[in-house]
Amino acid sequence: MTTTLITGIGSLVTNDPAHGTGPLGLLTDAAVVLEDDRIAWVGAADRAPAADTVHDAAGRAALPGFVDSHAHLVFAGDRTAEFNARMSGRSYSAGGIRTTVAATRAASDAELDAGVARLVREALRQGTTTVECKSGYGLTVEDEARALRIAARHTPETTYLGAHVVAPEYADDPAGYVDLVTGPMLDACAPHARWVDVFCERGAFDGDQARAVLAAGVRRGLVPRVHANQLGHGPGVQLAVELGAASADHCTHLDDADVAALAASDTVATLLPGAEFSTRARYPDARRLLDAGATVALSTDCNPGSSFTSSMPFCIAVAVREMGMTPDEAVHAATAGGARALRRTDVGAVTPGARADLVLLDAPSHVHLAYRPGVPLVSAVWRGGVLHG
Amino acid sequence: MTTTLITGIGSLVTNDPAHGTGPLGLLTDAAVVLEDDRIAWVGAADRAPAADTVHDAAGRAALPGFVDSHAHLVFAGDRTAEFNARMSGRSYSAGGIRTTVAATRAASDAELDAGVARLVREALRQGTTTVECKSGYGLTVEDEARALRIAARHTPETTYLGAHVVAPEYADDPAGYVDLVTGPMLDACAPHARWVDVFCERGAFDGDQARAVLAAGVRRGLVPRVHANQLGHGPGVQLAVELGAASADHCTHLDDADVAALAASDTVATLLPGAEFSTRARYPDARRLLDAGATVALSTDCNPGSSFTSSMPFCIAVAVREMGMTPDEAVHAATAGGARALRRTDVGAVTPGARADLVLLDAPSHVHLAYRPGVPLVSAVWRGGVLHG
Ligand SMILES: [Zn+2]
Ligand SMILES: [Zn+2]
Repeated sequence: MTTTLITGIGSLVTNDPAHGTGPLGLLTDAAVVLEDDRIAWVGAADRAPAADTVHDAAGRAALPGFVDSHAHLVFAGDRTAEFNARMSGRSYSAGGIRTTVAATRAASDAELDAGVARLVREALRQGTTTVECKSGYGLTVEDEARALRIAARHTPETTYLGAHVVAPEYADDPAGYVDLVTGPMLDACAPHARWVDVFCERGAFDGDQARAVLAAGVRRGLVPRVHANQLGHGPGVQLAVELGAASADHCTHLDDADVAALAASDTVATLLPGAEFSTRARYPDARRLLDAGATVALSTDCNPGSSFTSSMPFCIAVAVREMGMTPDEAVHAATAGGARALRRTDVGAVTPGARADLVLLDAPSHVHLAYRPGVPLVSAVWRGGVLHG
Repeated sequence: MTTTLITGIGSLVTNDPAHGTGPLGLLTDAAVVLEDDRIAWVGAADRAPAADTVHDAAGRAALPGFVDSHAHLVFAGDRTAEFNARMSGRSYSAGGIRTTVAATRAASDAELDAGVARLVREALRQGTTTVECKSGYGLTVEDEARALRIAARHTPETTYLGAHVVAPEYADDPAGYVDLVTGPMLDACAPHARWVDVFCERGAFDGDQARAVLAAGVRRGLVPRVHANQLGHGPGVQLAVELGAASADHCTHLDDADVAALAASDTVATLLPGAEFSTRARYPDARRLLDAGATVALSTDCNPGSSFTSSMPFCIAVAVREMGMTPDEAVHAATAGGARALRRTDVGAVTPGARADLVLLDAPSHVHLAYRPGVPLVSAVWRGGVLHG
C-alpha cells in the first residue's frame, strides 16, 4: 500500500456537496490522500493525515480528472486538406467519413493502436483520465471487431458503432447493412464492447433502423447511447429516452418535447461543442437543458472529420462562451456529467473510494479553464493514483 | 559560432514566397540551419549543409515563432470572480480596469516582474517568441514608468499606454489627465518605451484627446499605435491612419471608409479575438479587411479583464471559426502580420538573416493549429537560437 498526500490545494472541486459548498462541493485550502489507485481522504489541509509521499500544490486549484464520454479514436488517414478546404470556403471533392473508413481498413493493427495511444496520451496531458472510444470507421465484421479490440486495450468504455454510416458496399442496400450490424457484426463486436451506439440522423439511420440496432445491442447485453439530433431535428432523443439510453449525444436541434423527455429521464444530454466549432454549425443550447432539469455532459467528440480536438478545457471554454453554461456548470459537465453519461460512480468526483484521478491546474481556480481559453493550464494529472506530468 | 540543423521538417511555413509556394512560402521536406541567434539557411532537407548539432523534426510542421503584438502583461490582482459573474449572468459591483490599477499600484516591483515573466514563459511554451507589452495599469507618473521599466526587462516592444483610462484621481478632470499623460508622465515613460498607444473609445479618450496623446508621443520619438473601434464606431482607425500608426487594434466596428483607409495605408489592422471570446462580443470581420487589401495581424490582447489568454494558437482557431480567415491567413497574421504591426523585419519569417525563432508542432501541418483547437501542439520552440521545451 502506498499513500500520497496532495496538500496546499487552493481550491478543490470535489463534485460531492457533502465535502464543500455548492454543486461542485468546493473546498478551499484542501488536501487529498490517495491510497494506491483510490482516493482515501478529502478535507481541510490542516487536518490531513500523514502519507508516504507529500505533493505540495502551492495554492493551485484541483479537480476530478475529466471524463470524455464521446470520442472516435480508432482511425487512420489524414483529413487536414478537407478541413482546410471547408474553412477556406473551397469545395473538396472526396472527404467525409468514407475517406477515414478506407484509410482505417487499410491500416495495420499496430498503426491503429499507436493512433489511439497517441490521442489518449495527448488527452491525459490535458487532464482527461477517462475516455470513451467508439468503433465506426471499419464497417465490416472484421474491421469493427478489430477497432473494438484495439480500443479495449486503452479504455473499458468501448462502444460498438457499426451503425455510424451505411458501409459503402451496402450503399444500395441499407436494410442489408442493418441486418449485418444487428447480426454477424454484433456477434463479433459484443464481446469487446460495453455500449452500443447509432448515428440516428437523416442520411445515416432513421428511427426504425436506429431502434433495431440499439435493441439488438441490448439483447446482447450492451447498453445504448445515441448520436441524436445533431444536424437537424429527428427521433434520436426520444428513442434514447424510450430505450433508457445512458446518453443522447449532440442534442443540437431539440423541440420542447425532447427537452422535457431528457429532463424527466436518466438519459444524459451530452453536448459536443468541438463539432459545432469545427463545422461552423449552430451550438446546442445547454442553458435550456439545464433550466429544464436535464443532466448535461460535455465531451470532445474527438474525430478527424468534424471535431479533431482532444481538449476538454477547450470544450469548457466554448460551452461557456456559446452555450449559456456558467464556468461551474461547464466544469461539472466535463467531470461529473461525463461520469453520469458513462454510468460510472467511481470517476468524476474527488471523494473517498473513488478512483484516484485528479487534475492540478497552474491556476488558483477551476474558473480559469474558461477564463484562460487555449492556455494549457494542466500542470499534473493523477490517473488511478499514478502521477503524469 | 554554433550551428544547429533542424531537418526532417514535413511542412515549413517560411512566410517568404521566395522560398516556397503561396503567401506562406510553404516548403515540404525542409530543413533550417540556425547560426547562433540567426537563421543561416533554409531549403530542401536533402540539400542542407552540415552543422554542429542536428535536430530531427521527424516529419513535424514548423513555422516562425508567433509575434503577439498586443498584450497587457504588467499587472497584479485577481479578476476571476468578475469574469465568473459576467459569464454566469450575475452582476458584479466592483471590477473593471480600476480594480487592476489599484492592485498594480499596491504591488512590489518583484511581484510585477514575476507576473510578466510567468506570462512570457507561458506564451513561449505556446510558440510566442516576440511579445509586445503595454503599461496602462499604473496611471500615475511613477507607476507608468515603473511598468515600462519592468516590461523592458522582458521585451524591447514596450508601449506607453498612460492613456488607457482616465486615472481615478482625475475622474472630474479628464483634460488635466491628458495634460499629465502628454507632459510629466510622458517625460518619465518615453525613455523606457518604443511605442505610444491610446484607448480611443467612448468612455475613455475621444478623437481630440487621442490625437493629443499620440502627437505628444511622436514628438518624443515614440511610434503610435491605437486601441480603435473596439466597442463601437469611433475616430480611432482614421486617426491611426492619419498619424501613420503602425497598427490600429481591435477594429471591430468599421465603416467602409475605415476599411478603405486601412487598405490604402501601412497601418496594420490588429484583430484580438480573445477579447470578443471572453466578453461575448461580436467578432471583427477579418474577411472584409483582407478582401479590401488591408494587412491583418492576430494578437492575444492578453490582460486580466477582457482576454486572459496568452495562446496564439487559440486566437488562430477562433479567427478561422468566427472571422472568415482561412487557416493559412490566420497563421500568416499571427506571425508575419504581427511582425508588420511591430515594424519588425527580423521576426515573423523563416529566412536567412532573420532571428532564429522557430516553432515545431506535434502535427504534420500548420493547418492543425485551426484543425485541432485547444490542443497544445507546440512541441519545441527556438527563440534567438535557444531551444525551449
Ligand atoms: Zn460522435
Ligand atoms: Zn488592449
